[in-house]
Amino acid sequence: MNSELSSLQVQDIGEQGLLARLQRFCPPEIIGDDGAVLSTEPGQSLVVTTDVLVDGVHFSEITTSGEDAGWRAVAANLSDIAAMGATPLGITVGLGLPGEVAVSWVEELYQGMTQCLQKYNTPIVGGDIVRSPTTTIAISAFGQVDPLRIIRRTKAKVGDMIVVTGVHGACAAGLQLLLHPELGQNLSDSDSEALLLSADRTVLIHAHQRPKPRLDVLPILWEILDSYTPHSVAGMDSSDGLADAVVQICRASGVGAVIERTQIPLPKQFNHWLTQEQALEYALYGGEDFELVLCLPKEQAYAFVQQLGEGAAIVGKMTDGSTVILHDQTEEYPDQVLNLDRGFQHFSH
Amino acid sequence: MNSELSSLQVQDIGEQGLLARLQRFCPPEIIGDDGAVLSTEPGQSLVVTTDVLVDGVHFSEITTSGEDAGWRAVAANLSDIAAMGATPLGITVGLGLPGEVAVSWVEELYQGMTQCLQKYNTPIVGGDIVRSPTTTIAISAFGQVDPLRIIRRTKAKVGDMIVVTGVHGACAAGLQLLLHPELGQNLSDSDSEALLLSADRTVLIHAHQRPKPRLDVLPILWEILDSYTPHSVAGMDSSDGLADAVVQICRASGVGAVIERTQIPLPKQFNHWLTQEQALEYALYGGEDFELVLCLPKEQAYAFVQQLGEGAAIVGKMTDGSTVILHDQTEEYPDQVLNLDRGFQHFSH
Repeated sequence: MNSELSSLQVQDIGEQGLLARLQRFCPPEIIGDDGAVLSTEPGQSLVVTTDVLVDGVHFSEITTSGEDAGWRAVAANLSDIAAMGATPLGITVGLGLPGEVAVSWVEELYQGMTQCLQKYNTPIVGGDIVRSPTTTIAISAFGQVDPLRIIRRTKAKVGDMIVVTGVHGACAAGLQLLLHPELGQNLSDSDSEALLLSADRTVLIHAHQRPKPRLDVLPILWEILDSYTPHSVAGMDSSDGLADAVVQICRASGVGAVIERTQIPLPKQFNHWLTQEQALEYALYGGEDFELVLCLPKEQAYAFVQQLGEGAAIVGKMTDGSTVILHDQTEEYPDQVLNLDRGFQHFSH
Repeated sequence: MNSELSSLQVQDIGEQGLLARLQRFCPPEIIGDDGAVLSTEPGQSLVVTTDVLVDGVHFSEITTSGEDAGWRAVAANLSDIAAMGATPLGITVGLGLPGEVAVSWVEELYQGMTQCLQKYNTPIVGGDIVRSPTTTIAISAFGQVDPLRIIRRTKAKVGDMIVVTGVHGACAAGLQLLLHPELGQNLSDSDSEALLLSADRTVLIHAHQRPKPRLDVLPILWEILDSYTPHSVAGMDSSDGLADAVVQICRASGVGAVIERTQIPLPKQFNHWLTQEQALEYALYGGEDFELVLCLPKEQAYAFVQQLGEGAAIVGKMTDGSTVILHDQTEEYPDQVLNLDRGFQHFSH
């Protein structure tokens, strides 16, 4: 990149100058009014979701490329849309920027956002750019959903199977590998189990940098559900980890759950690198995998997993009561009660 | 207020604790999913708008009460909805908060938001609360609009009258009075014209603290338009000042404009306090009055003003060309070309 270009700061071109550069990322007909106009199809409900990402908390402007930050911000929001059973219509982007942020970083941010958005035919329909001491990305995403197909946390019933898409823990492990490059390098030569192959490292880091919202599984889900008696689906995404998702659904639905320890799909890259305990820690509490956690009646659950093959797994079921228990079929480990205290407390000292 | 309560900080109760306290401001059926579900009426389009407000830039956590910050943030977004000709459906609130922010300030913020929202029957339908070094409020607002009634900046035609609601400059003057309490106190006794009555001071400060989005004038506008041949309306709100609004509409529509200096409605509180030049400065460039600036054919413009009485005024008209001229009918001042350079450049050094 031209070094003059890359050293250009936001304060050098001002809000209007920056807006002019970023307009190429938005459909031209949508720019320049007080708001954007979208249409939902007749009979569809609107789904709205919002996320705020802060430099130094959710990403680091220094260690995260603009493209990765942009992709991840969009993926998180589209994952929320998917978790409601909806199809995305558009997003708005609110940016808070210190004057000394590189214009190139902001352009890369939009590049990353549009790369992810294009995979799901979703436009940036509006936004706001303001001065701030802290780089902040506030995204709202809009989608539409058939009111009969809304996925809600409250709809789980005793006896429902807990079905998850994808593998769990890869994203959090990828972040740790980025933050601590010495991990898995086996530098001490003392523990041959701790070696992580370079190709596996790349896969995990990529899982962190480019997570994919699971909008792709919704048509498969509807097809299966349409062949059975109609009923509602419970679920959410695993943005705060698998444990959080199951606990949240249980709380909202007033049920309990048993998760089978050995059924949780883990990244195969963990195999020779992490102990079973470490792997489970990432899968349960790591978060940001943006997989779907769904509660389905037995037959539909099996049909869904059969259809997706290795892309989905039944990890447990909903029970009477209110506790979420991690159970080991092999009886190697005692039952363990899962709750949210183990998760991130963003404001703690 | 209980001093223990008022000294409680966000970091003392964490994200979940704060969420639990704020849920009373949201409709219960809407909480706790990955997204909120809203319905537009059949045949209506969706309007989406977003704004980011930053502590120290758009408000000051120290000098702005939580209630005022909340009211103003909501008013700005609902004003954008009004400026599109739409009716609000709901808002989402993304909050970035330092751990040491007082919980009472955040609760007051929500109090102020809901006070404004309740006037317009609009719920908070979702949000996100995250840790940030800088208090940040990112609001997205959603509305619905009859596609034939969307107000756009691009629709102005040569010959259209420029109609404004309300008075202009009050909000910016109110802010100056808050920032510089010595203004208008006539402390030197040297200039008897510069005295501002205490009641007038209160009115101007209130205009800053509690601006009102002009959703109330839309039914009047539609009623008038319905009695004439159907056609589109151009317009926007005056959130960045009257000059900015007219210049933006002219740019978007490819026309010019003449604004009559003496026709701009000024707050009567300015009369004995400010010179004509100072008053005009506030009205043209002050911003945040959240009045509507509309371009209407002559007959409709007159009908609108007749209906609203002192609540609206014709301030000029759209012309051939591309310049926006401030003209003085009394010929005391020469013509002046208005452009955006005079406005705020948020990122300047």
